[in-house]
Amino acid sequence: MAMTRCLEVKGRPVAGGKEPLICAPLVGRDEAAVLRELEAIVAKQPDLLEWRVDFFASISETARVVDLAQEIRKSSAGIPVIFTRRSIREGGETIGISEEQVLSMYQAVARSGAVEFLDYELSSEPAHFERAVALARETGTKLIASFHNFQRTPSRDEIVAKFVAMEQAGADVAKVAVMPQGLEDVLTVLQATLEGQKKISLPIISMSMGAYGSLSRLFGWVFGSSVSFAVGQKASAPGQVPIEDLKVVLDVLQRALKGQ
Amino acid sequence: MAMTRCLEVKGRPVAGGKEPLICAPLVGRDEAAVLRELEAIVAKQPDLLEWRVDFFASISETARVVDLAQEIRKSSAGIPVIFTRRSIREGGETIGISEEQVLSMYQAVARSGAVEFLDYELSSEPAHFERAVALARETGTKLIASFHNFQRTPSRDEIVAKFVAMEQAGADVAKVAVMPQGLEDVLTVLQATLEGQKKISLPIISMSMGAYGSLSRLFGWVFGSSVSFAVGQKASAPGQVPIEDLKVVLDVLQRALKGQ
Repeated sequence: MAMTRCLEVKGRPVAGGKEPLICAPLVGRDEAAVLRELEAIVAKQPDLLEWRVDFFASISETARVVDLAQEIRKSSAGIPVIFTRRSIREGGETIGISEEQVLSMYQAVARSGAVEFLDYELSSEPAHFERAVALARETGTKLIASFHNFQRTPSRDEIVAKFVAMEQAGADVAKVAVMPQGLEDVLTVLQATLEGQKKISLPIISMSMGAYGSLSRLFGWVFGSSVSFAVGQKASAPGQVPIEDLKVVLDVLQRALKGQ
Repeated sequence: MAMTRCLEVKGRPVAGGKEPLICAPLVGRDEAAVLRELEAIVAKQPDLLEWRVDFFASISETARVVDLAQEIRKSSAGIPVIFTRRSIREGGETIGISEEQVLSMYQAVARSGAVEFLDYELSSEPAHFERAVALARETGTKLIASFHNFQRTPSRDEIVAKFVAMEQAGADVAKVAVMPQGLEDVLTVLQATLEGQKKISLPIISMSMGAYGSLSRLFGWVFGSSVSFAVGQKASAPGQVPIEDLKVVLDVLQRALKGQ
């Protein structure tokens, strides 16, 4: 229906350009847990997987991270993978490694060919962000620039400014996830997404978090968010709905929007 | 969850205060058609019925209108009925009677005790609107003041002003249905509904029409719209979704909003 822009891997739209793409997070603490999660999630046929490596207890051992990324690749039934270290300041888990080590890990994983997307936060130091951009170019992965606020929702203009800054910084996809303090804030995110699509040419991923924000996970794609994160096995952020529920609502919405 | 205000009949909330109430329209041209529709719709268990009497070809024969209202009452399984003549200027059917005759018909139907709600348009002549208010008081029916625009969506402030005017004019329920020209307009209606709840104390019914507007029929209750009009047998306005689809989405939303 072309409400959203396609995410592409090697010049081809993920899941044939389906809208929205459903992404399920992997949040296991060790190899066994991640692979168990993966098996359960792949059976639910999401369009994307996000490995939240900050949940992985052995994150400091790059070789184990690369090995597990390759295991995930082998068992992911061809579903593209987003590799994400979420920082503590943006709602991630505590990890015992420096940003230099994080970037080395990103480099090793991207070069291994095991992942299609890298998520890196816009609030990183500019020099670090530039290295993530260069790494994505070098390895043919796509860089998702992300911004999170787990406390509140910035104004529409501030959110749009984030999208613009992400494009200017060299990202391939622009992602914003923020917490509403009321229903009005959910509408702000939808408006910013509509507006963002006019201001930048990248695909946008946006969501309002928490219980109220679950609305945006169900119908934010109509306003231009290319991906909805849903629960395969375990949520990675507040307000994610189960994949099954999301699919049911999408089916109704897609018929309603066609006027059927 | 108390996102909306209850519609009441004889001091008791309709459907036990369920949110939102699902209302299905009856749009048959003659008695047989209306009663066939009614049978099919009642099986789907909506919370309200709206008899759109402007679709009824014998609208000029008040006795037949009253008889049919009583037939509907008998076969409606206790579901409260809204009696509505939608005017041509607000999207209704052409009828061959004057406004005086319309008000006489409203009087006969309300006095018969066959209906719980009367829908009368805010854009009516003030003297006519006052008579509708007085009739509702006299008969213990509830008056829904309504406003429709099938071309466009007024600004948020204009919509809120309609809600306020409806309360000031003596209505029991305030209803606005408008056509979006883009997705932004759908958000405008949701914002106006949130805002309207702060400005007036009546229950509000709001919707954006057409394909995009179908979103508001699915999610508008979260922003304060007490009723969603859905298709039982045949739509009465563009963008109405089937009752079955609406129920499926409401189930997901209600769980998501509870954070389950």
